[in-house]
Amino acid sequence: MAFFQKGNAILYLFYVSLSLILPKLQTRMSNLQMTDRLSKVTEALTHPDSLKSFSGEHTHGEPVPSGHILREIIELCRAILFPGFYGTPVTNLRSMNYHTGVNIEKLYQLLIGQIRAGLCFADEEKQHSEKTDKSIEQKNKEHCSRAQELAVLFIERLPDLRAILYTDVEAAYNGDPAAESFGEIISCYPAIRALTNYRIAHELDLMRVPLIPRIITEMAHSETGIDIHPSAQIGHHFTIDHGTGVVIGATCIIGNYVKLYQGVTLGAKSFPLDENGNPIKGIPRHPILEDGVIVYSNATILGRITIGKGAVIGGNIWVTENVEPGARIVQKKYK
Amino acid sequence: MAFFQKGNAILYLFYVSLSLILPKLQTRMSNLQMTDRLSKVTEALTHPDSLKSFSGEHTHGEPVPSGHILREIIELCRAILFPGFYGTPVTNLRSMNYHTGVNIEKLYQLLIGQIRAGLCFADEEKQHSEKTDKSIEQKNKEHCSRAQELAVLFIERLPDLRAILYTDVEAAYNGDPAAESFGEIISCYPAIRALTNYRIAHELDLMRVPLIPRIITEMAHSETGIDIHPSAQIGHHFTIDHGTGVVIGATCIIGNYVKLYQGVTLGAKSFPLDENGNPIKGIPRHPILEDGVIVYSNATILGRITIGKGAVIGGNIWVTENVEPGARIVQKKYK
Amino acid sequence: MAFFQKGNAILYLFYVSLSLILPKLQTRMSNLQMTDRLSKVTEALTHPDSLKSFSGEHTHGEPVPSGHILREIIELCRAILFPGFYGTPVTNLRSMNYHTGVNIEKLYQLLIGQIRAGLCFADEEKQHSEKTDKSIEQKNKEHCSRAQELAVLFIERLPDLRAILYTDVEAAYNGDPAAESFGEIISCYPAIRALTNYRIAHELDLMRVPLIPRIITEMAHSETGIDIHPSAQIGHHFTIDHGTGVVIGATCIIGNYVKLYQGVTLGAKSFPLDENGNPIKGIPRHPILEDGVIVYSNATILGRITIGKGAVIGGNIWVTENVEPGARIVQKKYK
Amino acid sequence: MAFFQKGNAILYLFYVSLSLILPKLQTRMSNLQMTDRLSKVTEALTHPDSLKSFSGEHTHGEPVPSGHILREIIELCRAILFPGFYGTPVTNLRSMNYHTGVNIEKLYQLLIGQIRAGLCFADEEKQHSEKTDKSIEQKNKEHCSRAQELAVLFIERLPDLRAILYTDVEAAYNGDPAAESFGEIISCYPAIRALTNYRIAHELDLMRVPLIPRIITEMAHSETGIDIHPSAQIGHHFTIDHGTGVVIGATCIIGNYVKLYQGVTLGAKSFPLDENGNPIKGIPRHPILEDGVIVYSNATILGRITIGKGAVIGGNIWVTENVEPGARIVQKKYK
Amino acid sequence: MAFFQKGNAILYLFYVSLSLILPKLQTRMSNLQMTDRLSKVTEALTHPDSLKSFSGEHTHGEPVPSGHILREIIELCRAILFPGFYGTPVTNLRSMNYHTGVNIEKLYQLLIGQIRAGLCFADEEKQHSEKTDKSIEQKNKEHCSRAQELAVLFIERLPDLRAILYTDVEAAYNGDPAAESFGEIISCYPAIRALTNYRIAHELDLMRVPLIPRIITEMAHSETGIDIHPSAQIGHHFTIDHGTGVVIGATCIIGNYVKLYQGVTLGAKSFPLDENGNPIKGIPRHPILEDGVIVYSNATILGRITIGKGAVIGGNIWVTENVEPGARIVQKKYK
Amino acid sequence: MAFFQKGNAILYLFYVSLSLILPKLQTRMSNLQMTDRLSKVTEALTHPDSLKSFSGEHTHGEPVPSGHILREIIELCRAILFPGFYGTPVTNLRSMNYHTGVNIEKLYQLLIGQIRAGLCFADEEKQHSEKTDKSIEQKNKEHCSRAQELAVLFIERLPDLRAILYTDVEAAYNGDPAAESFGEIISCYPAIRALTNYRIAHELDLMRVPLIPRIITEMAHSETGIDIHPSAQIGHHFTIDHGTGVVIGATCIIGNYVKLYQGVTLGAKSFPLDENGNPIKGIPRHPILEDGVIVYSNATILGRITIGKGAVIGGNIWVTENVEPGARIVQKKYK
Repeated sequence: MAFFQKGNAILYLFYVSLSLILPKLQTRMSNLQMTDRLSKVTEALTHPDSLKSFSGEHTHGEPVPSGHILREIIELCRAILFPGFYGTPVTNLRSMNYHTGVNIEKLYQLLIGQIRAGLCFADEEKQHSEKTDKSIEQKNKEHCSRAQELAVLFIERLPDLRAILYTDVEAAYNGDPAAESFGEIISCYPAIRALTNYRIAHELDLMRVPLIPRIITEMAHSETGIDIHPSAQIGHHFTIDHGTGVVIGATCIIGNYVKLYQGVTLGAKSFPLDENGNPIKGIPRHPILEDGVIVYSNATILGRITIGKGAVIGGNIWVTENVEPGARIVQKKYK
Repeated sequence: MAFFQKGNAILYLFYVSLSLILPKLQTRMSNLQMTDRLSKVTEALTHPDSLKSFSGEHTHGEPVPSGHILREIIELCRAILFPGFYGTPVTNLRSMNYHTGVNIEKLYQLLIGQIRAGLCFADEEKQHSEKTDKSIEQKNKEHCSRAQELAVLFIERLPDLRAILYTDVEAAYNGDPAAESFGEIISCYPAIRALTNYRIAHELDLMRVPLIPRIITEMAHSETGIDIHPSAQIGHHFTIDHGTGVVIGATCIIGNYVKLYQGVTLGAKSFPLDENGNPIKGIPRHPILEDGVIVYSNATILGRITIGKGAVIGGNIWVTENVEPGARIVQKKYK
Repeated sequence: MAFFQKGNAILYLFYVSLSLILPKLQTRMSNLQMTDRLSKVTEALTHPDSLKSFSGEHTHGEPVPSGHILREIIELCRAILFPGFYGTPVTNLRSMNYHTGVNIEKLYQLLIGQIRAGLCFADEEKQHSEKTDKSIEQKNKEHCSRAQELAVLFIERLPDLRAILYTDVEAAYNGDPAAESFGEIISCYPAIRALTNYRIAHELDLMRVPLIPRIITEMAHSETGIDIHPSAQIGHHFTIDHGTGVVIGATCIIGNYVKLYQGVTLGAKSFPLDENGNPIKGIPRHPILEDGVIVYSNATILGRITIGKGAVIGGNIWVTENVEPGARIVQKKYK
Repeated sequence: MAFFQKGNAILYLFYVSLSLILPKLQTRMSNLQMTDRLSKVTEALTHPDSLKSFSGEHTHGEPVPSGHILREIIELCRAILFPGFYGTPVTNLRSMNYHTGVNIEKLYQLLIGQIRAGLCFADEEKQHSEKTDKSIEQKNKEHCSRAQELAVLFIERLPDLRAILYTDVEAAYNGDPAAESFGEIISCYPAIRALTNYRIAHELDLMRVPLIPRIITEMAHSETGIDIHPSAQIGHHFTIDHGTGVVIGATCIIGNYVKLYQGVTLGAKSFPLDENGNPIKGIPRHPILEDGVIVYSNATILGRITIGKGAVIGGNIWVTENVEPGARIVQKKYK
Repeated sequence: MAFFQKGNAILYLFYVSLSLILPKLQTRMSNLQMTDRLSKVTEALTHPDSLKSFSGEHTHGEPVPSGHILREIIELCRAILFPGFYGTPVTNLRSMNYHTGVNIEKLYQLLIGQIRAGLCFADEEKQHSEKTDKSIEQKNKEHCSRAQELAVLFIERLPDLRAILYTDVEAAYNGDPAAESFGEIISCYPAIRALTNYRIAHELDLMRVPLIPRIITEMAHSETGIDIHPSAQIGHHFTIDHGTGVVIGATCIIGNYVKLYQGVTLGAKSFPLDENGNPIKGIPRHPILEDGVIVYSNATILGRITIGKGAVIGGNIWVTENVEPGARIVQKKYK
Repeated sequence: MAFFQKGNAILYLFYVSLSLILPKLQTRMSNLQMTDRLSKVTEALTHPDSLKSFSGEHTHGEPVPSGHILREIIELCRAILFPGFYGTPVTNLRSMNYHTGVNIEKLYQLLIGQIRAGLCFADEEKQHSEKTDKSIEQKNKEHCSRAQELAVLFIERLPDLRAILYTDVEAAYNGDPAAESFGEIISCYPAIRALTNYRIAHELDLMRVPLIPRIITEMAHSETGIDIHPSAQIGHHFTIDHGTGVVIGATCIIGNYVKLYQGVTLGAKSFPLDENGNPIKGIPRHPILEDGVIVYSNATILGRITIGKGAVIGGNIWVTENVEPGARIVQKKYK
């Protein structure tokens, strides 16, 4: 497959070299010539051949999820969950009531739009054929009312989300001698930001909202270096120290009171292919960590194995087999 | 401890399933019902029971540190320390004088607010009992004048901060064959951003400003993947290559001319508990790296051990014991 | 070399201690005194002695590259390359035509400024001596017309950039059982963001634009934790899973269909020094990965070695010697 | 009718006086008391009794017209009608094509929202009684599709709007010896801004879009001091010199080549009342100005009278009776 | 008095002419020369001699009123008084409660700052001599607590302000056959904007807040062309048609059910001077309009005269003597 | 001349009516049809026939003056001229020095761009024919260096501008019994804003900068309702009370200590036409007001007449002949 125009590229390299060697021969391009060349690029880039692969299929005028708005949604959730630490500073319970009311209303409106965009997106990607004007309109109506329902359901989950995030703050505080207060942990610790995004995304994932949960966890990934798949299942009192480079795969199951250090991977070892040589999607392929497990920095745990209750995995090692409850695995000494 | 309402959660899961299976039975919720349900969530989230754990204690109307303003403070410091590379481009010495004057004035005003917020925050977290209106007002006045003093003291440290950061730039330039100029290092290298934040935070930490230093180093952590605790002590000509995943703990002592690569952890091995089973805070628990030490990528050095002068630690290994000066430690071969 | 004023620092520490111990003796500094002290800092910071090392040499009024504008350039490129996923949502081919036209025009104008700034910057850094007003004006004119040419040349490369990035999306989709659509990969996967920046920067690097390419890849480094040097050479169908902590050095050569996991380093082992003890710049010092190589998480491959076609490198290991095609290297077991 | 609470007001005046006279007796209100008093005001202001008169009737969750968005609509129209003078500077015909395309698309989307809001608003105001959930949804659907149609119809009128506005520019140029170019008139003259808004608003008024046209002409009124009712009918080559204080009433009919100076009023003399003593709405009550009429500054022309072709009305006079074609009316001399 | 440097000005005119005539002789100024000349201007403009007259007296570091924040205050007041027409659209009573609560809190905080700035400003202007550091601090404290009290008092007046503004809306509706709904009047009519600002400013004026009330009415003047002095006293059911050019002086007393048209002046005729030839401030010098008076466009009513109950003043005339109740005064006919 | 397409318009009116009467027959337009119709409008609006009249002549890629930037220029001038009243609040002389330096530097850069745009604009408007690529480039260079010179010259005029504006503040204070301080006048009085813009524009007009001066005075016109042509000549101690509706024509000459009230017109009576029937531009046609003249509200003074020293013109009258020094002219009584 010749995925890019060879001839063009060679010509281009030739041109670059020429222009590097002979700057003096070259008279200044006129404005007209510039315009001409830029217009040709515009045409090339909007030619269906160039586009088909990327955007031909989901540009029927439906809304697409917006990174900008999802960022706002996360900020609203943080302000609602941790009033006084995120969002407008609050000064008393009554004022908190007003602010929370306004934030929830705004969150509700933004969520409807993004959930609906997610639902449309999934449709676009899955079924290409039988679209009629009628069916599109029908779909649209369904997505709208479904998005409204899911937005309310999600918002009703916020009190429980706050309760479980509280246990995570508690775990971080208890596990770090450098932490001086719960407030410090909420304000500074990347683990709390990553877990807030994950727990939000996980709720949306449970509701089968497409795409949005992934974007939300990737936002935390970019912000903290902690990459948790929204489908992973994580218990309470979970904490991650420092966090950069942590990866938690889609089918992980993590118990309560588990602690990870930076650079830990809970990944898949390999994945079976179907008859066409494509990876089979959706089968369990990531580890199970039982209650109280500790994994030290840069350890790599791969495959659907079980790390037993209370086991401790040392840093910088590669684990691909079950570990007994209470076991302590460490790297061989360097000499 | 039933930290979240079980019954509610089950009901919710049932509701989700129902709504997934039976979308047709469900008639569109009326606007009124929506409003009602959202109001109930607002009430739940501002009920003291739900809040107490998080924000009940520091919402007496005192200012809280603001991530947004601290980011502005860092940008001002960068513009002052590296004029021409950050902030408004400057065109000559006189113009630099005007810009630096304006920036320092702005920095001074923002710092006062944030330092004061940090001082209030620490108060809130530490003592809950004996607050009277009188004592609050007195505290406020003390915090205000203390914040003003510390802000000036901090600003007076900036010339020295620039001098030591210059040695870090020098070290990065000398250590990287790909670096083409000092300017490239100041503009691009994440290590310089992380060290600028760290050296700023360290000054504030020395002045016992609470919370703010940690937020500042976590900003750099998010931006660069380099996590340096503001209490760590780091000499001059320090450099970190690439940097993602580096962790430098609170009680680390790092000499001059030290170089780290990406993914290096200078962490605690374990920490002694007090009689209540809580970690004892404040005791030395991170490594000492003497002058000229080099640590390669993803190495993990744990505990209050000493890596002797000029020692070289290879990549991907776990060090928990002292290393002789000049020693060279490497991972065992893979076969 | 006494790079910072010792006396000052000691005095300062003394002052800090004093102010900590004796807050009551200290009467509130008057506004006038404050102003005085701040003014002195401004003078100190704009004194040529303090500045010379940093910005004395490139503040002759020439433009400097702007992080802010480069970020806008990247956003425009993403909107042009992936219409509908980045930038304004597009609703049909005709609208895409208008938007792409406007975006390319804007990109052209911003690029001219930044490329010119890069060219000036390189000049400043390299030659200090013989500047006359005349030669500066001449240089300026040359930079202007050169920047215009290079901006057009770069824009003409965009269709090919889209074509090769498409193969990267394809590779990510095929390699990840959790990925549900091409759209999800374009929207969420950090590897695509990092590769988009890298492939843009690589084009500019080929055109010998100074500094700008490095700033662009460092932006992706900050956003994704993936650090790819713009001079590295990377084939098509390249993918990086999760990505945090990946480092790809300046002289790497990577074939087609290669896959890396998070934390992988493709670095230099050591670099020869010239007669002055400075590292010799520009010689090949990073690995070559042939077609189809897979490197698992946190592996470190150092030096100008070759990993043969289809070889698989296990996680958490350190490779410094050639690896045969098709070989499979893993870490020794932990027991 | 006791439209405001007398008792309260007296108490308040007493309180004010007290606080002015006796500042020393009054101890500083506690934060708690403040909060309490502010909360009471919030309650008072959201009590249905206080609200009913204003907003009780149109707050059923329907969109309301937004001044902010209407301002954006006007800016888009100006950029489309006068490319190069308003909006992004354009550099050539092709670029103008892209920009106009993008602007029209944006205009279309914003117009739909605002026209729909106007339609809803009119509904709310007119019929209070028989609203059922069903009828609301039906109305909503109708408004949506009507708004879409009207937005397209309006946009299709833009080429003709540009043509007639061109005659107004021509008239201003010919009539003002101080004008140096058409460009100056388009850029600076308030009359052109006011006429652009009027001609836009008049089109929407012809389409029976409620409220929006009035908001648009009032924007011009605020910007220029020229108050033209959107229902007025105005021919081509119309111009207003300086303009501040000009008023043109709703049933005015103005021919071609008419010129007004600042402060001219074309108003109603009196209006007949219906049996309830309310003014009868909609009957012709403002003057008719035939082709070529000139009215000098601060003249006031009232009632449904006709100023004949080519008549000239002097400044500062009050005209309430028909004026013959070609007549020249002036104020009596001051002595 | 030689209030500006003659010599300089002549030199300048000479220079301008020269540069206009001889552009070719003049070689391009070097950057250095430019910088030099600009620096000299900076010095001239910050020399105490140049400044004394303007800002020397009130730049002791006290806050000054901010046009930007006062604009925000007015927007908040409008949103609180007319929910659904200004500010965030509200969708139901409960949501209005949250929004009003948040708005009042914000209004309270901004008001404190601005009222305090007004109090400081008045101090600065009045007493120059005896300022000691101590007295300044004492003043500051008094201003702070006074500002807090007045802010609460003002907010407690908002329900009554809404009630009286409602009568103004009613009057506008009844008086204008073109008005189609109360909503149209609130949204569009400049009179309502001007009266809202006036009634707000009048409350603050009653509380003796300096400067702020004038800035607020001048904002409305700029927006609507209606200039009402905050000290004027105006009854209920007041309306102004079109409004541009209306002036209502500081000591005017206007009854209920009064109506003005555009361009009406209620001014002072002349003002007695004191022994130094300065106007005596504060004596009644503007007209009294009794209940039900109507004044047509561009009429000018000057001096402390009384326009009796129900009198009608025709347009474009000059009234300087008392008018009997029920009288009807008109301009003499033009022929 | 059929300046707009009649056929089209009729068709349109028909369509509107149809759509008003028969909404039910009309099925919802498909998205495709909409797109089609919008595209056609884009084409119509960018067709050279439609454009030629407006923008064909000055869209050769040259910069055009920007209202947005000119507004910023005015704000910078106000901050420089009245530090502490406009722009950042300043706290002491040293800080004022830094701020003024930064503001002047910014002003200088913005002015260069706008003056250059003005020079290009004038060229475009005047000469259409003989443009070659060469001559354009030459012109460009000349404009650039001329713009730089004029910008410096203008900035060097600022100290004198401040001195003369001070006399205007003085005059306003002395003339208004309601004014309480110089500060109030600088902060609130529209006359000061209008005169600041006028005096700035007049300087630029003296330097023959095209277009820009007019845009600047029109900004003040929009903000204050006071319309002063930048070519008018105005002495010191000039003041305008209230101001709305004041017009001062291009060839007016106003002495010192003159005072105008709102609504005063100093206009042209008629203007001689040249042989083609076009007004002859540039001949004196507006009044001369000698020292100490007072003109009351809504008076209209027309033609090149002289109002002698100390004369007083009463309100609402029309003056077209010379007035003796010391004379007092008033409107005839209304009965």
